[in-house]
Amino acid sequence: MTQTKELPHPTREEIRIEAVLHALADPVRLQFVRELNRLGIPVACGAIPLPVNKSTRTHHMRVLREAGVTHVHPEGTARITALRKEDLDALYPGMLDGILGAKR
Amino acid sequence: MTQTKELPHPTREEIRIEAVLHALADPVRLQFVRELNRLGIPVACGAIPLPVNKSTRTHHMRVLREAGVTHVHPEGTARITALRKEDLDALYPGMLDGILGAKR
Repeated sequence: MTQTKELPHPTREEIRIEAVLHALADPVRLQFVRELNRLGIPVACGAIPLPVNKSTRTHHMRVLREAGVTHVHPEGTARITALRKEDLDALYPGMLDGILGAKR
Repeated sequence: MTQTKELPHPTREEIRIEAVLHALADPVRLQFVRELNRLGIPVACGAIPLPVNKSTRTHHMRVLREAGVTHVHPEGTARITALRKEDLDALYPGMLDGILGAKR
């Protein structure tokens, strides 16, 4: 049996505002997080189309995970991504909704 | 009489969330904005000490102004900087308080 390897994530206490803002400042990553929030459920990798190639996508996914914006959980050969809304809302009340609600 | 030249600023409509987040993602700029918000009044350039040299400081000030985070107004030889809290609160309700209230 193949053991799927868990990816490293910062704990809630380890999340830093500068890293979160940097992660969300990129248009592609912001588009992804906005869609993830709209769906309201964890999604498999690739379920949200992005205008970038696979290696760039992988990079963006890592930046979001390492900043503590998303949680990624391997399930067989897939990776399931969830928005860490509860953590971000607890740390920075109002910030995420203010950002994701932005018209521009 | 010397005419002090006004610096360019984005209008409220021209402000973009990606630029605001990028501006605030830098630790030095975030420290400056946090202090500006705490003081609650426009301040002269240099009134808020920052751990950078003058040219780096000038760069940070320009990033904040061009993103629409601050408004800079020349007054004689000084430059008075104000936080555009009203604009940011109108565009992204809750975001600024969520970010500036961050403990880490």
